[in-house]
Parts: sequence; structure tokens; C-alpha cells
Amino acid sequence: MSRVWNFSAGPAALPEAVLTQVRDEMLDWHGCGMSVMEMSHRGKEFATIIETAEADLRELLAVPQHYKVLFLQGGATQLFSQIPLNLAAGRSADYLVTGSWSKKAVEEARRVAPIAGPARLAGSTAVKGALADGFTRLLRDEEISLDPGAAFLHLCTNETIYGVEVQDDCAALAARAGSVPLVADMSSHILSRQVDVSRYGVIYAGAQKNIGPSGLVLCIVREDLLGKAVSTMPSIMDFRLMAENGSMINTPPTFGIYVSGLVFQWLKRQGGVAAMEQVNIRKAEMLYRCIDESGGFYRNPVETTSRSRMNVPFTLQDTALDAVFLAEARDAGLVSLKGHKTVGGMRASIYNAMPEAGVTALVDFMRQFAKVHG
Amino acid sequence: MSRVWNFSAGPAALPEAVLTQVRDEMLDWHGCGMSVMEMSHRGKEFATIIETAEADLRELLAVPQHYKVLFLQGGATQLFSQIPLNLAAGRSADYLVTGSWSKKAVEEARRVAPIAGPARLAGSTAVKGALADGFTRLLRDEEISLDPGAAFLHLCTNETIYGVEVQDDCAALAARAGSVPLVADMSSHILSRQVDVSRYGVIYAGAQKNIGPSGLVLCIVREDLLGKAVSTMPSIMDFRLMAENGSMINTPPTFGIYVSGLVFQWLKRQGGVAAMEQVNIRKAEMLYRCIDESGGFYRNPVETTSRSRMNVPFTLQDTALDAVFLAEARDAGLVSLKGHKTVGGMRASIYNAMPEAGVTALVDFMRQFAKVHG
Repeated sequence: MSRVWNFSAGPAALPEAVLTQVRDEMLDWHGCGMSVMEMSHRGKEFATIIETAEADLRELLAVPQHYKVLFLQGGATQLFSQIPLNLAAGRSADYLVTGSWSKKAVEEARRVAPIAGPARLAGSTAVKGALADGFTRLLRDEEISLDPGAAFLHLCTNETIYGVEVQDDCAALAARAGSVPLVADMSSHILSRQVDVSRYGVIYAGAQKNIGPSGLVLCIVREDLLGKAVSTMPSIMDFRLMAENGSMINTPPTFGIYVSGLVFQWLKRQGGVAAMEQVNIRKAEMLYRCIDESGGFYRNPVETTSRSRMNVPFTLQDTALDAVFLAEARDAGLVSLKGHKTVGGMRASIYNAMPEAGVTALVDFMRQFAKVHG
Repeated sequence: MSRVWNFSAGPAALPEAVLTQVRDEMLDWHGCGMSVMEMSHRGKEFATIIETAEADLRELLAVPQHYKVLFLQGGATQLFSQIPLNLAAGRSADYLVTGSWSKKAVEEARRVAPIAGPARLAGSTAVKGALADGFTRLLRDEEISLDPGAAFLHLCTNETIYGVEVQDDCAALAARAGSVPLVADMSSHILSRQVDVSRYGVIYAGAQKNIGPSGLVLCIVREDLLGKAVSTMPSIMDFRLMAENGSMINTPPTFGIYVSGLVFQWLKRQGGVAAMEQVNIRKAEMLYRCIDESGGFYRNPVETTSRSRMNVPFTLQDTALDAVFLAEARDAGLVSLKGHKTVGGMRASIYNAMPEAGVTALVDFMRQFAKVHG
């Protein structure tokens, strides 16, 4: 088979140009006679790779100097506990819940609460008893009650499963939180839109959606938040120790850092995050329009002002057609469209690496399918 | 440059046949139109990859049915704390120290001791005040004092930095430990020699030496040791939860698992671990003979009966020649021979992926160098 249009939510499609480069450099990176996988992480070749990756990421997101960039492991799930263990120092932390991932974050925080500090719900859109918890929108201002003494305020700025995305780069929330640092799980939309890093205390993201291969987590931390870690936790989980050792207390996931670095270079060639954001706006508009103009054949349940540009879940009016839709889509070269098991239906994840041509192909297929089966 | 002979201690050389296959499958794995890096970890393609990898590993090491195979993250360093957090349940654990890595293991265990249980030194070859702690041999029987009530007995069966390796597959130690389970860090020699897995409670190994890329840790756990984990630790660190979820509480390091699986297949094609061990014996004998017969020009300080087949540190009589040795070796296509900073000199790591031809090239170079500069 030739390359497909891959709408997987993660691990997700990578830019073909990056994969081609990875392939071409596989046995011999820049004439050193080794694969990146075979290099000592303490050698000069890998030093170039990790330093370039960090510099390019800093440039892409305009990361201020008083923030550290860490390359970590264990996925966002590990960060869910690692963050209170590093930041809470026994104080209570506030959590906003707007979907599965922010819900998991608070659940993990509660596991470690006896040693880190309590996790308090500062707002939730979960509707008890509703189908799939009814996560279909962002929190309204009046539904959020903040603790002014909280160690931090955690939220997930793009909910991959429900397709709910913060639209204003947390401008209003950061203003309201005042000196309480925002901690944002941006796993599924980092680098897809412009952000003002200085608005956040911590930004983190599993790599496997918008960055690179799984097994790598990016973490951007404001320096004044370092050094509060619980002393009884593994040293590898201590942000300050990791920052002091250039993310290399031990061997980092070198190959993942290398591929991510190539993605950063690819993003720069595309014009950076601002240019990427414009493409992403066009892609999302095209797909939502197709859904909304289908006369109910397709449906996305998320409130218009909360819709994600990255993850677009949708259902078919006639669920008996689900299997047919997936099979015909696959025949048309459109794969990984099955929705997450908690919500059912379909989901198209259209990250940076998905070109407009891929979304056009999907929309054309969806219109044709609705015509035949509608 | 063409491919070099890479003696890196880790990340280390991989079989060229594996790298070639990874390259050829980079944009399209088995006709599915995606790279392995782009696949959902919940899809049928990746299910095949991880299941095959586990089955091949079980075959290579003859892992009994009552052991679970886990694919984890964070390197052996994370396991250093993860193991007491999972196994100790408040009881004291015994540690043997024969080099840097077993020393780090006990240090990490002591960090988490307030929540996991105390870490007790059951024997150490560290010589206070000696150069580089004087780790030049295994522990003698009379230097080991075991606690019969210990939760487990931890050791590192091959010390990568000092080149000290357990020779008898822990037969004597396991007999002495009785019902106390052995926990063995086999990072730098797993799959290089035959082991009787049933002798151990836990075997673990960072992938980046003898298995695959960094960012993946293999962990083989006897089932009766599951379920004792400290409840306040991150769920991703809980062996039982990981076992119940097929190593997929969250997204695993999919690409690392794929490459490791290809290495397992390559090992099977070489005739398995027994055949590999014969090659490794020949390689090690060739290199130690070159050192021992150099008339003192080269020197390996490790007691003959404790010498590692995988990591061979050696010094030059005239340390002023170190830089010349490294430069001329590089010119001859022999790289990553610089010793670890704590011991200085040189180190040749000759893992499974290093062919006999590579060791022959190194030995030829060393003899010639000694002739010219001796």
C-alpha cells in the first residue's frame, strides 16, 4: 500500500519529509558512521542533536529565558503525578475537569496526595449519568471557583477524546488565577497554535501527537517553580535535578528527541507556529462545515465555541452504518477514524502533520458517503 | 564515512541487519501505509508487534509462564526506586554493591525508603579512598551477610563501568538466599549469556545496551511478587497495573518496542542466546588476551574470575598516550572507546551487536599501536 491519510489520535501521523530524513540517516547520521540510536548520549554528536532541538523549540514557542525545557519520559500520565510531587509541597492544588485527560490528571494527583498535597476540584463539566460524562464544552466563568492559596491550577487545554479546546490561550483564566501558576497539559495541541508561554507556570505535552514518537514528554517549567519537590520520590522525577542535568540524569530517549528535533525544523520550514495555526484553522473549518452542513447525517456534539481544531469527534445518525463507514474509508486510504471507545462513533485527529489535502480527501469521502447512504 | 566499529557502552551499536530493516520499513510497515511511529498503540498492527516481541523474548530466555514481561520507561534508574516501591511493602531489602550501578540502586532505594522500606547493605566491594572506589571484583561468599527476612536481594549482574560480571548465573547466591527473591539489574548483559530465569524474582534491563534504543526498560517479574505496591505512587510505576494492562496503562514507547522486537528476531536467526554466548566468549577472550599479553602496555584491573564479557575497561601504561590512542583509533574506524569518567582510560563494550570482526579490528589496532608506541 502507498502512504495513507492517518487520522490516529496518537501515536499520530508524522510529516513525510521527516520520516524520509529519518530513513535516509538511519545507518549513518551526518557521516559519523552510526545511527542516532547507537550514539552515546554523552557524545558530541548527540549533544548537537539535543541542543538544536531545544533551541528550535524555544524559537518556535518563544520560550522566555527563565523557563527550563525538559525532555522526560513516561507520557503525560507520569506527569499527572510528577507535577504535584514537584510543585505542591504539601499545599492543595486546584484542578479543572473538562474531559477524560483532565479527569485522569486529578485521579493521579489524588493517588499521590498523601505525600504531595490534596487535589481539589475547582470546576468540572462532567454530567453525572450523562452518556460519556457529557464533556461537550469548556467551563463557564461562573462554574470555576478558585482557591487563591492553591499551589497551582491544572487544566488540559485540548481534550483529545472529546474534542474540547481552550480558545483564548488561557488569557481570562490566567488573569483570574493571579499569582497561582497555571499548569497546562497541551499534549494534543502544542505547536498547533500560538501560545504566550509566560502565562503558564508549566506546559507539558506527550510527544506522540504533535511532536514525535511516543516515549518522550516535553515539559516547560518556570524556574521559580523548581526545587519544591518531595524528597522521597525517584530522582528521575525531580524537575530540578533534571533541569540541572540537561534532562540527562540517566540516558534519555535519544531517538525520540532526534525525531522531535526534525519535526521542529520542519515546522520552522513551514513558517513556524503562526503559519501552522492558519493551516490548522482552515483544516478544522473545512471538516466542521462538512459535519454541520450534512443535515444531521454527521454530528459533532461539542459547543461551537469549545470545539477543538485538532481532534474532531463525530457520530453518524445511523450507527448501523459505522462499520461500513470505516471499511469504505479504509478502502479510500483514510485510516484510524474509529472514535475512542468511551464516546463511540468517529474521530478525525488533524494535527500539524496532516496536510490540507488529507482533510480535503476526508471531507470528499464523507460527502460522497452521505449522498450514497443518506 | 562508512559504518564504524562502535564500542559505546550505551546507547550502543545495533545489528546492521536490524537498522537496514528499520530503514526499509520507515514509511510503510508491512504495507499498512504508516510508519511504526505513526501507529495507534491500540491498533491491530501494533498489537502484532508487541505480542511478537514478547513471544520472541520469552522464547530466547525461556521465560516461565508464571513470569510477566513488562515494557517500561525511565531506564534502569527509574527501576531503582520502582522496585522497592513495588516489592518491599515496608520491609527491609538487601543490596549487594559491586560497582557504580548497584551503588546507584541502593542510593535511589534510600530516597524512597521512608515510603517503601529500608535498604540495607548486605555486602560491598567498595574500598573507601581507593581510586574509583576500587570496584575490581565480585563479592566473596564470606563478605555477604544476608537478612533472611529481606523483601528481596538486589544485585547488578554486570557492572558496565567497572567491567565486573557475575559468572555463575547467581547459582550460589540464589541457593543461599533461599526464599528471598533475587532482583537483578542485567542491563548491560541481558541476552548475551544463558540465564535460568526461575532463579530470579525480577530481572530488568535498560534496552540501550543489548536490546534496542534508549527509553525502554524490560522487566521480567514473577507473578507472586505483584500486588504489593505502595498505594501512593504513580499508577504508571505499579507493576501489577502494568501487567494487567499489557504494559499499556498509557502509550508505551512503541518504536523502541518495535526495534527491540527486530533485535529479538535477529538473535533467533543467530541461533539464540546459547549460540550468541559462544560468540561472546570468543570475543572477550580475544580482547583480554591482547591486554594481558601486552607486557603491561595495556592493563585491565579486574580479577580474572570477575571479568565482564561485555564491558572491557583498560588503561594505557603511559596515560599521556590516551589522546593519541583515541585519535588513531578513530582514524581506523574504531569509535567510542573513551573510558567512563570515573575510571578513565579506555573501555570497549562488545555487546551482542558487535561482530567478531569488530573485536579483531580493535585487537589488531591495539597490537599495532603498542608496537609503535611501546
